Amino acid sequence: MSSDPAFAPFIKPPYYVVIFTSRRTQGDNGYAAMADKMNHLARQQPGYLGFEAVRNAEGFGFTLSYWETPESIRAWKDLAEHQFAQEFGIKNYYEHYEVRVAKVERAYSGPTGERHATAWDAV
Amino acid sequence: MSSDPAFAPFIKPPYYVVIFTSRRTQGDNGYAAMADKMNHLARQQPGYLGFEAVRNAEGFGFTLSYWETPESIRAWKDLAEHQFAQEFGIKNYYEHYEVRVAKVERAYSGPTGERHATAWDAV
Repeated sequence: MSSDPAFAPFIKPPYYVVIFTSRRTQGDNGYAAMADKMNHLARQQPGYLGFEAVRNAEGFGFTLSYWETPESIRAWKDLAEHQFAQEFGIKNYYEHYEVRVAKVERAYSGPTGERHATAWDAV
Repeated sequence: MSSDPAFAPFIKPPYYVVIFTSRRTQGDNGYAAMADKMNHLARQQPGYLGFEAVRNAEGFGFTLSYWETPESIRAWKDLAEHQFAQEFGIKNYYEHYEVRVAKVERAYSGPTGERHATAWDAV
């Protein structure tokens, strides 16, 4: 596990990940404030495990959130405040996005972890 | 599906994803050339479905590769040229990394897709 705060804490699989890949529209349009608010709210939800995000200068990025179960993801999706953010985001923030829900089956870290890995690697 | 080349093609689940989260070391150290080479090689492998990557100015980033089966991931991991790149990368490119192998169970896109979604969303 890294002390680098950009990384989510290491969690032993199995657990779930929501992979959100997106291209932002131009301008902030309240995005940073909304993202902070939703991030804060997500941390309070049952089953929340962690969060990682990155975006480049061209507005392309990933947001990954980690959850204990599909039910915890569903409950978060249905939360009223989050529903509002979803609808607002669809109208204002994204040129395009892809959402994937996946079950994490294996996980390891490095360079000091027990398994070797690169960007093109897997167990 | 988007015409934006940063996005992998839409694929109907189930399939697999290798999520590689990393903090790069300073300097290129041959990284860009190695990444291009491995990306080109990966595309030729059986079971390869697509690739998405982003890194910010602070060197934190994600590389996601998509595969038909766990067996196709394993075969790619074990390929001799890729093994060399993995060992070289561990020594030269990363301060820290996390690898997750996950089974994609659901996927959808927007804003024009059939389901609504935001960065904090899921099916």
